[in-house]
Amino acid sequence: MGLILGLDIGGANTKASSSNGRFVESIYLPLWRGADLKGELRALATRAKPCKVAVVMTGELADCFEDKLSGIKSISQAVRDAFDVPVRFWGISGFDPSDPIELAAANYSASAAEVASEFGDCLFVDMGSTTTDLIPIKGGRSVASSTDFKRLSRGELLYTGMLRTSVGSLLPTVQIGELRVSLSPEFFAVAADARMALGDIVESEYTCDSPDGAPKDRAHSLQRLARTVCADLEEIGEEGAIAIAEQVKQRQLSMLMMAIEEQARRRDVHFVVAAGIGEDFIALAAINLRLRCVRLSERYGKQVSAVFPAYAVARLLERAEAGS
Amino acid sequence: MGLILGLDIGGANTKASSSNGRFVESIYLPLWRGADLKGELRALATRAKPCKVAVVMTGELADCFEDKLSGIKSISQAVRDAFDVPVRFWGISGFDPSDPIELAAANYSASAAEVASEFGDCLFVDMGSTTTDLIPIKGGRSVASSTDFKRLSRGELLYTGMLRTSVGSLLPTVQIGELRVSLSPEFFAVAADARMALGDIVESEYTCDSPDGAPKDRAHSLQRLARTVCADLEEIGEEGAIAIAEQVKQRQLSMLMMAIEEQARRRDVHFVVAAGIGEDFIALAAINLRLRCVRLSERYGKQVSAVFPAYAVARLLERAEAGS
Repeated sequence: MGLILGLDIGGANTKASSSNGRFVESIYLPLWRGADLKGELRALATRAKPCKVAVVMTGELADCFEDKLSGIKSISQAVRDAFDVPVRFWGISGFDPSDPIELAAANYSASAAEVASEFGDCLFVDMGSTTTDLIPIKGGRSVASSTDFKRLSRGELLYTGMLRTSVGSLLPTVQIGELRVSLSPEFFAVAADARMALGDIVESEYTCDSPDGAPKDRAHSLQRLARTVCADLEEIGEEGAIAIAEQVKQRQLSMLMMAIEEQARRRDVHFVVAAGIGEDFIALAAINLRLRCVRLSERYGKQVSAVFPAYAVARLLERAEAGS
Repeated sequence: MGLILGLDIGGANTKASSSNGRFVESIYLPLWRGADLKGELRALATRAKPCKVAVVMTGELADCFEDKLSGIKSISQAVRDAFDVPVRFWGISGFDPSDPIELAAANYSASAAEVASEFGDCLFVDMGSTTTDLIPIKGGRSVASSTDFKRLSRGELLYTGMLRTSVGSLLPTVQIGELRVSLSPEFFAVAADARMALGDIVESEYTCDSPDGAPKDRAHSLQRLARTVCADLEEIGEEGAIAIAEQVKQRQLSMLMMAIEEQARRRDVHFVVAAGIGEDFIALAAINLRLRCVRLSERYGKQVSAVFPAYAVARLLERAEAGS
């Protein structure tokens, strides 16, 4: 009896977890850059030796695919080719939907099903490297919208994250000393650089590429931040770069607070369950809003929390198999 | 007697013009992606056969360079290696400055010197694929700030352009039908896609890369615009994609109007000289602001207008040589 392996295949990262939470991996696999998904999954199969595989995905949105359906087909085929054990795909209404489009961006719904069974009614908020899902859970199930577009328009998908978000897209201007300066919209620095500058993360947690491909140490992060105002670091000084970083963090915190408040009000839920590498950040937003908050890591441990959709889909398959 | 060739070496494009405006070229040469500057310049040397070369640059800001000085050194060396005729570099206070940092982002100052001698006091506005320079000219010379950082903080450099600007950085939300939808900050679509969608440009004028590397026709531009709200085109329809495009254009127009108005008020100039591929767009902004406006293409022709800093530096060298 091998383990049941859950996979969450995103555009930038592929995450894996066994249903007992003992096997956990996160692999940086940028699909839009032609990463070898099948090859990496084969290597993963060798390491994990699963008896069954359960899959959720969001990577179909990556712009290497013409549209979502071709993305879904290509990703599904890669998984089937990589594993020689039964593979099941979770869609927004359960495993192996008749219409494959239901597999699109269904990772949040797997997480929601697990959270609902564990915590009951709540606002489930999962902040990753790139995006933040806000999933209202009422009556034991997700009442979130079905597509990314609808979730975006209803504030259930906040396209901001802890690491990959471009600094130039977060703020129109920053205050540096006495100057108010416009930011370049170029991909010069990311949220991870702001967090490195502030000492909120260490280099090993900077798990995405740096925008310029240069090292990810704090000195280079400060340089990248200076570049967002078309400056060398000497021109604005370390304090200038730190000022940019603080404003990035504040902006993301206020985006998150506004989004949580809107969902809490609209859905009349006052309990937040926080997940993902941004769970402490979510907890901070919830505290500021005077909402009760539990971090998934308190219940499941840090590792499982960081790959929660993968863990959740593995658990869902385990339960489905036990029930059948 | 060969021609005097002016070069304007930017991070994304290298432009060339002879001092008589008869030889004009624009080459897409993305330095940050390791484009072969020396090789391309050698080929250009063969085509143009100049007797002298005059250079301005902004490419030193490209994030393939550690800092501006290393960018300047690398670009200067590439030019010297590519041409076996005398090469002179224009800095913000004239040719061949003793401090090479004066070469940084000096292309606007070459343009300004030429415009000042032709038009007198004015606000010179040059909108390219990526950025827009707003250069107040008073008493026959540019009174703009000296570095990109200072220009950015004083509204003399507007980091928005006709083609390369990321849609996700321009607008926090868009209105699509009855829905107000947040935009993804990913590099999914650019201003050129908005202009293709609206029929403002044709495919041959889409001279930058498409964000996804897919074709630049209108159908693909519409798909890319849909992706900025995490949708397939069917999900929001062509009218949805066009709505995004219109809001991008309106946003850029209002950014431009605000920037022109601020400079006109602060410097007490009421005459705009418009240049670059965005000169019609600048003229529209000026008309909306009830400011008199002349397009460079009316005076110099379309081709020279599109590569104006290269033309200007060639003219400056011609005059400097004639005067010496």
